Amino acid sequence: MRLLILNPNTSDSMTAEIATAARTVAAEGTEIVARSPRFGATAIDSAAESYLSAVGVMDLAAAMLAAGEFDYDAVILAGFGEHGKDALQEMLTVPVLDIAEAAAHVAHLLGRRFSVITTLARSIPPIQDRLLLAGLDAHCASVRACGLGTAEVDADPAGAVQAIVDEAAKAVAEDGADVICLGCAGMAGVTGAITAKLGVPAVDGVAAAVALAQALVGLGMSTSKAGVLAAGPDNPRCHWPLSTSLGLDP
Amino acid sequence: MRLLILNPNTSDSMTAEIATAARTVAAEGTEIVARSPRFGATAIDSAAESYLSAVGVMDLAAAMLAAGEFDYDAVILAGFGEHGKDALQEMLTVPVLDIAEAAAHVAHLLGRRFSVITTLARSIPPIQDRLLLAGLDAHCASVRACGLGTAEVDADPAGAVQAIVDEAAKAVAEDGADVICLGCAGMAGVTGAITAKLGVPAVDGVAAAVALAQALVGLGMSTSKAGVLAAGPDNPRCHWPLSTSLGLDP
Amino acid sequence: MRLLILNPNTSDSMTAEIATAARTVAAEGTEIVARSPRFGATAIDSAAESYLSAVGVMDLAAAMLAAGEFDYDAVILAGFGEHGKDALQEMLTVPVLDIAEAAAHVAHLLGRRFSVITTLARSIPPIQDRLLLAGLDAHCASVRACGLGTAEVDADPAGAVQAIVDEAAKAVAEDGADVICLGCAGMAGVTGAITAKLGVPAVDGVAAAVALAQALVGLGMSTSKAGVLAAGPDNPRCHWPLSTSLGLDP
Amino acid sequence: MRLLILNPNTSDSMTAEIATAARTVAAEGTEIVARSPRFGATAIDSAAESYLSAVGVMDLAAAMLAAGEFDYDAVILAGFGEHGKDALQEMLTVPVLDIAEAAAHVAHLLGRRFSVITTLARSIPPIQDRLLLAGLDAHCASVRACGLGTAEVDADPAGAVQAIVDEAAKAVAEDGADVICLGCAGMAGVTGAITAKLGVPAVDGVAAAVALAQALVGLGMSTSKAGVLAAGPDNPRCHWPLSTSLGLDP
Amino acid sequence: MRLLILNPNTSDSMTAEIATAARTVAAEGTEIVARSPRFGATAIDSAAESYLSAVGVMDLAAAMLAAGEFDYDAVILAGFGEHGKDALQEMLTVPVLDIAEAAAHVAHLLGRRFSVITTLARSIPPIQDRLLLAGLDAHCASVRACGLGTAEVDADPAGAVQAIVDEAAKAVAEDGADVICLGCAGMAGVTGAITAKLGVPAVDGVAAAVALAQALVGLGMSTSKAGVLAAGPDNPRCHWPLSTSLGLDP
Amino acid sequence: MRLLILNPNTSDSMTAEIATAARTVAAEGTEIVARSPRFGATAIDSAAESYLSAVGVMDLAAAMLAAGEFDYDAVILAGFGEHGKDALQEMLTVPVLDIAEAAAHVAHLLGRRFSVITTLARSIPPIQDRLLLAGLDAHCASVRACGLGTAEVDADPAGAVQAIVDEAAKAVAEDGADVICLGCAGMAGVTGAITAKLGVPAVDGVAAAVALAQALVGLGMSTSKAGVLAAGPDNPRCHWPLSTSLGLDP
Repeated sequence: MRLLILNPNTSDSMTAEIATAARTVAAEGTEIVARSPRFGATAIDSAAESYLSAVGVMDLAAAMLAAGEFDYDAVILAGFGEHGKDALQEMLTVPVLDIAEAAAHVAHLLGRRFSVITTLARSIPPIQDRLLLAGLDAHCASVRACGLGTAEVDADPAGAVQAIVDEAAKAVAEDGADVICLGCAGMAGVTGAITAKLGVPAVDGVAAAVALAQALVGLGMSTSKAGVLAAGPDNPRCHWPLSTSLGLDP
Repeated sequence: MRLLILNPNTSDSMTAEIATAARTVAAEGTEIVARSPRFGATAIDSAAESYLSAVGVMDLAAAMLAAGEFDYDAVILAGFGEHGKDALQEMLTVPVLDIAEAAAHVAHLLGRRFSVITTLARSIPPIQDRLLLAGLDAHCASVRACGLGTAEVDADPAGAVQAIVDEAAKAVAEDGADVICLGCAGMAGVTGAITAKLGVPAVDGVAAAVALAQALVGLGMSTSKAGVLAAGPDNPRCHWPLSTSLGLDP
Repeated sequence: MRLLILNPNTSDSMTAEIATAARTVAAEGTEIVARSPRFGATAIDSAAESYLSAVGVMDLAAAMLAAGEFDYDAVILAGFGEHGKDALQEMLTVPVLDIAEAAAHVAHLLGRRFSVITTLARSIPPIQDRLLLAGLDAHCASVRACGLGTAEVDADPAGAVQAIVDEAAKAVAEDGADVICLGCAGMAGVTGAITAKLGVPAVDGVAAAVALAQALVGLGMSTSKAGVLAAGPDNPRCHWPLSTSLGLDP
Repeated sequence: MRLLILNPNTSDSMTAEIATAARTVAAEGTEIVARSPRFGATAIDSAAESYLSAVGVMDLAAAMLAAGEFDYDAVILAGFGEHGKDALQEMLTVPVLDIAEAAAHVAHLLGRRFSVITTLARSIPPIQDRLLLAGLDAHCASVRACGLGTAEVDADPAGAVQAIVDEAAKAVAEDGADVICLGCAGMAGVTGAITAKLGVPAVDGVAAAVALAQALVGLGMSTSKAGVLAAGPDNPRCHWPLSTSLGLDP
Repeated sequence: MRLLILNPNTSDSMTAEIATAARTVAAEGTEIVARSPRFGATAIDSAAESYLSAVGVMDLAAAMLAAGEFDYDAVILAGFGEHGKDALQEMLTVPVLDIAEAAAHVAHLLGRRFSVITTLARSIPPIQDRLLLAGLDAHCASVRACGLGTAEVDADPAGAVQAIVDEAAKAVAEDGADVICLGCAGMAGVTGAITAKLGVPAVDGVAAAVALAQALVGLGMSTSKAGVLAAGPDNPRCHWPLSTSLGLDP
Repeated sequence: MRLLILNPNTSDSMTAEIATAARTVAAEGTEIVARSPRFGATAIDSAAESYLSAVGVMDLAAAMLAAGEFDYDAVILAGFGEHGKDALQEMLTVPVLDIAEAAAHVAHLLGRRFSVITTLARSIPPIQDRLLLAGLDAHCASVRACGLGTAEVDADPAGAVQAIVDEAAKAVAEDGADVICLGCAGMAGVTGAITAKLGVPAVDGVAAAVALAQALVGLGMSTSKAGVLAAGPDNPRCHWPLSTSLGLDP
């Protein structure tokens, strides 16, 4: 089984970390390939960057499809609260998973109420929106921010642990959460610390998505093409794929 | 990995069918054991039978725990809309999955709106309640009944296909569903027919639960004991486990 | 008019207290009979105990029906947040009332927002679920716990008053409640203290259920058999009623 | 026990009918007094008439209070979907019941989903609003109109039966209702026909309110004065009570 | 363009203030006429006063229509949380705007979550009800009270500024509001202080309503008469318009 | 006052039509400038095209800002259900309006329930999502599709009238709508036909947005920068603005 993980930002170091985290939990026989867009931002902390990342991963998928190089059993979009999953679902038939939703699904299976600990306060609303649109908000006790930006967490994951654990403790004590979801791809190493200190399951979105992708592929399921996720009409586009027009190598 | 599947009714033939369905989708290395309660009803079509089944599976788990025979990595409660999952979660630390919730989780990952096709109309409200309490109702387009009782579907699964496919067709055309969940453990063989005729993914709850159980076990997750799913206080009970008091062999 | 009150736990002293509380508010000509199951737990503080209690009261009703001894105009299930009301409604035609719902109905009639004060924190979620499923959660300001278990309250009702009044005071001040519901059958004596100290109406579920049962019987109403509360199909059951199989006297 | 029923329209014949309906279900020892405002409309089929009726019943209560003639244990506002209950609750300490809410409470106690059958289609939205604000909409399957105005139903209640039963049949068959509420005070005689033809409980709001009022008075409960239903500040008013300024006899 | 602003209370000074506030923001060519009812209360701090004010503005509109003096392009009901808008919409064909709803609409266009700062705590529930019924509550972060009555704010608007700004600061810091709506017609001068101190947009309902009224009139829109806002049936009324019966000059 | 209208697709003819429609309703002294992105699709009928359009309008705004050419009092994003508004709000301080939301706001002011008539069925879900996220879904009776694609409506607006009016008629008769919103920028000419044939107000999103933009500018309001709409952090981006990297003239 081959899983393609799309890191929506352009940070190579974070892409590598995500790949490592994914391989840690992948089953034997699951091959992990991680890629990032050929244009965009090194970190995603705004709606503008989120849209740019969505087009970046669409562009990457389109270029791979055009080159006949798309050969994966499922795709994971590794942005916590970022846009783009539905576009990839339209373009592909294999399952496409979003790490925020994957974490929420796993959290539902383990407890009664989950909280998400994200980076900056400005990332709270997009995560709330993602969960609302995905129909996964009813058991969300809270979305909280540890106050560190994506790049800061990426640069110093170890140093971010204390801030994240502290915020998770508040989610458990004040909001009634009995499961914690880590709201950022770069937070992967923190789950152990949370469970050790707070005694609650902690869910990393990338790990959750790898496990769920394996589950869907194992079931032989593919994305429904009977509704809005069917391929769109063939409206003319100019300069598309953008990376090709920009002369960027795949 | 060893998975225990608890068929909440006492029908041995349905227990065997469920086990077969589970083994069909289980990964290599996953061992499936299916059991049913030592008292209860042969089919569950009422709230009364549902509560009885919940106590039946609790009794089975308690007897296995008491006998030191509980040796499973996860448990699947194979009743679509039945009670009991939260009680098993309290009693155990390994993940406990409900097939209605498992089917709904998989459906969320494949499309935008799912419908459930169950047996009798009187089973619609408990399934709606299950999804509401699980926080999985927002993307549920409808719960529909094919008009055949659990026992009828069990007795003649092949003959039930047409009725189920017809109802699924209405769910797609009238309710906007793009994924169908089969709302009964005995309906397992119908998924192929639905996908072939309607072109939508069809999700069997037992299969979904096996895949998700494997995913959770693979991630090393266990049920949260930080909230309401912690073991309850040790209040005195009389005649418990009931099966022991009834002199029934495990 | 004859009302049957089913205490879902097996504590004889609590059954007696409930009967006394009910008789205090019953109209002239209303006869109160209180019973508890012949198996189960002495207090209900978990989902497992709640399901066991549901089967216990079902068993009692089944045995009474089988013996031709059921001769009541309405039934009150005296567990705050416990399961079983819908099963009793299926089995009977006379009105069946749940004390949590009864308290909530009365609270709606007296104010704008009510809070429930229950025993342990682990009882909060099942009460929230009960109100959600009953469609009575929109005006619920909060469900709070005084920190004492059912058995503790039962053992020392007088000593529990202060803890309950303190928690009720927070519900009024912080959550905006203008009516308090007592979330435990054993709390009956506390209503006077709450109203005296906080100046808000305090509703005891048993009292509320007796008054509403009298109202329904006075109106000549019975449970609807046109939907999911109709008697279920006659699926074969083994060892049922359990108490008969256990050789217990009615 | 003395109950004051306030018919919000000025039709003496409808006031008399309401009084008769109330006396039919009232317990022995309950005295029923029915009154209507001294100004307003003969039937209420618009928001404007509803507000006018609210001020009409407030005026009546104010005049009675001013004259020292208010001597009732509870008040029933007999307009289905009309305004004014909260104002009466502010002015009085005894319980005040609204017949739409009372019918909905009784319906909750008897089944899973209720529908309301009202008069004209234009009365559907205010009833929906009333149930939404009262927190009683979650189990409302539908509000339907039989197409006849309040005055038409009042003038010919017998003739309206068929139209109402027909609409109730649709509510049961198409909307899943298992209890029917009659959405107009003048429909009281129809309950028997609905239950006879459709086999579902049918709830008349006036009867429900009388029974619930008796229940509340029996419990010794009064309206909460701890929140928004406390008496308002003493802002100066001119020409109040209006009926006194208009020179109308009480 | 001629706009009629109806101050629902009878305070001439507040009517004058409202007119001044409206003229400050009105476009060139927009003529503002402000009126208040000929009976009612000098301030509105209860449901009773709110209903009375609704009938007061209806009476005024009816008298103007009867006298052939209604010559306005839109009407603004200047009560924050008061009743009456729907009745005016039934009576008229020109747009009718409510200042609470107008403020909420403008707030939606400027930010993600708004809070309302009103006068007394007892005004919070009616504002919440207004927003709920208007379908404008989902983005409302909170409704808070500064603790001063309408009349107090009216008497000393300058002195109320600090209390209002303080409460707005809490809405921003604790509730996540990024826009503040002033929940009282007499608070108009406070917007500048809030924006200056808190850096968030502050919306005055009267100003918002004037701007939106101009927008609707500019688009040539009128109230829908295809649904519940159509003129009601011609039910006989007595003593209507009340002001005429009271012998009051228009 | 200068308003910038951003047509998210690249069709010059549709951009011209939108400009004409906007000028028809703009007040004297309002200057309308309409632009479309320098890359993207000629019509937007999928999530992929919607994200591409969002980046297209962001790119246009960024290029204008970089060139010091942004000189507008408000911006209107003329895509019905398309992404991008929040990104523009982050980038700018002047008000940014979305035509779907603008139409919904105007609809709220005119009636009780509105329906949206869009192009293809696949456009229904994104419009539902837009309204849900905007908190404007509670009064939405339905979103319906006339079955014609954006390009088809654009190519032959006159020919599309009948299909749209027919669907609007169903919305009024079956869904209870009393206001119709046109769910596509190219449908502007249809409003008159709907009102003429169905007697309900019909709202064009571009016209609504122009009127509301004028209202906000008239009030002197700007986008809140106190929350998630503040400018994002300055994360490094490559190839941005894309149009500059592509060598496209502004």
